Amino acid sequence: MIELIKDATRPNPKSISDACQRLVIGIGDDTAAWHGSPRVQLATTDSLVENVHFTFESSTWQDLGHKSLAVNLSDIAAMGGRALYALVSLTCPGSVDSVCITDFYRGMTQLAAKHGVVIVGGNMSASSEVTANVFVVGEAISNTLLRRSSAQASDLIAVTGSLGGAAAAVAALKSTATGDIAIPQALMQALLRPEPRLATAHVLVAEGVQCAIDISDGLVADLGHICECSNVNATIQASQIPVNPECHEVAPDPLGCALYGGEDYELLFTCNAATYERVAARLDVTPTIIGEIMDTRTSSRGVVVVDAEGRTLTPGSTGWKHFGI
Amino acid sequence: MIELIKDATRPNPKSISDACQRLVIGIGDDTAAWHGSPRVQLATTDSLVENVHFTFESSTWQDLGHKSLAVNLSDIAAMGGRALYALVSLTCPGSVDSVCITDFYRGMTQLAAKHGVVIVGGNMSASSEVTANVFVVGEAISNTLLRRSSAQASDLIAVTGSLGGAAAAVAALKSTATGDIAIPQALMQALLRPEPRLATAHVLVAEGVQCAIDISDGLVADLGHICECSNVNATIQASQIPVNPECHEVAPDPLGCALYGGEDYELLFTCNAATYERVAARLDVTPTIIGEIMDTRTSSRGVVVVDAEGRTLTPGSTGWKHFGI
Repeated sequence: MIELIKDATRPNPKSISDACQRLVIGIGDDTAAWHGSPRVQLATTDSLVENVHFTFESSTWQDLGHKSLAVNLSDIAAMGGRALYALVSLTCPGSVDSVCITDFYRGMTQLAAKHGVVIVGGNMSASSEVTANVFVVGEAISNTLLRRSSAQASDLIAVTGSLGGAAAAVAALKSTATGDIAIPQALMQALLRPEPRLATAHVLVAEGVQCAIDISDGLVADLGHICECSNVNATIQASQIPVNPECHEVAPDPLGCALYGGEDYELLFTCNAATYERVAARLDVTPTIIGEIMDTRTSSRGVVVVDAEGRTLTPGSTGWKHFGI
Repeated sequence: MIELIKDATRPNPKSISDACQRLVIGIGDDTAAWHGSPRVQLATTDSLVENVHFTFESSTWQDLGHKSLAVNLSDIAAMGGRALYALVSLTCPGSVDSVCITDFYRGMTQLAAKHGVVIVGGNMSASSEVTANVFVVGEAISNTLLRRSSAQASDLIAVTGSLGGAAAAVAALKSTATGDIAIPQALMQALLRPEPRLATAHVLVAEGVQCAIDISDGLVADLGHICECSNVNATIQASQIPVNPECHEVAPDPLGCALYGGEDYELLFTCNAATYERVAARLDVTPTIIGEIMDTRTSSRGVVVVDAEGRTLTPGSTGWKHFGI
């Protein structure tokens, strides 16, 4: 099995990524090893658990490999870093075919290669349900880290891409157990194959942005984390939220999906207007201004969502609910 | 919950460990961050799964916290490095009390503090069974890594401490479902609270040892990994194996526990006689010479176990079998 995994995860021998160049020992010894650098190092871990975060009714093993790495790369993006190495702990029933396991690693390796990441280790264990635990190590690309604690009053709040797609797909999957509604491909893509915004993050850092988070728990919940860490409040305009247009096809409450649904893995960042102009001119993915950071002395507590007339909208929920919880 | 975990994992504010000094961001942002170094970096991950690697009938949550970190620190030791940071993915049923979770992190933090390691991140998720996935980053302490591939013909083979204790404890637990045999404390300690041999590893590196592995799969299986990676064979003397003396109290086959049982987390290393003498004089834990590395041109394939008369003993098994497999 280790030989199959080594094959499935082998980086392209022509790769000239920094991670490949610095690698000393990959899969096969007690630990992985690579040449260090004086840069600030980053590390994160995230797990996807069967029947909690995904089911094999809607997800393939390749999708699982992709997504379990993507959610970690998204965390590295949210700090403004680049990713270098991934280690993978996969637990699954002994009855799972080796083809599924290699598919899992192939899906992961495809995404890894795209971002210059090398899969350097991990382990497999028996368990009653499938759990993919991925750890990613990366490093800062400059002296700036995009921290949750760096938002300042009067900063603009912006997000990349569109929101709500993953949540709409989950809602549609739940309501179509009988398979009678076709779920738009774009929504399934948002749920199963999120694209970590690493290139976007590097533009943010280069242009002087200091505060960002990736939207994994949901827009309102994640912006709430920024408010808490930065000791500020936030007002967002419901009418400005870039709702994934496909949400309207299947979701009774598309705005709710965008505000409270999670797993979009877009970046939310805050900065002043001049910085925003420079960022927007350079980004490969369209950003949208959705609101403003408020001083705690002159605003309500936490995140307030207002409609086009300035009236406060009451949240229907406080973040993403996973499949099985 | 995150606040409880932050409390349980907070390093002693008086700690002057390198990991504490270099930490930039711990638990609470998208990733952990610390100041890098030009040294060779090491990373490893390992999982403990309920009913496969442990049960709560014999293990407490503190034991689980200790062991799930210890097995990773042991991998860092086996490379001759020092450990710096740990990230933890814990999955468990939603019904688990928060006291259990903080106990888990307390058990882990006690061991971490002993080795100057800081717990800097992780995540929690619902699941039907408890799985502790730990990821540890460390770095080399010199230019030498203890590789599986560095064994040379005519090297002595040595192990630290005693072997078979964890396997004897597992065997005794299985045969005492009715609780009518007292299992010696030393064996339970070997199973539940293994001590990673980091200090020992640093002596090995300082004295010029080049090849080591930690005994997690079992002595014969792990020595087999060295043979494969180094393209050598090995002969070990059954009579020289340092069998944990307590094994004789409960195990019908103490030697079998020491040869084929796993999870001892002692170090096996190979080196020439002069190096061994220097190492043995400095080690805090008694090493024992158990055999010799053989040239493939003049020996049988893989690992051969011989008795005091030089007769080959046939292996009864090829490594550690976990609880549930």
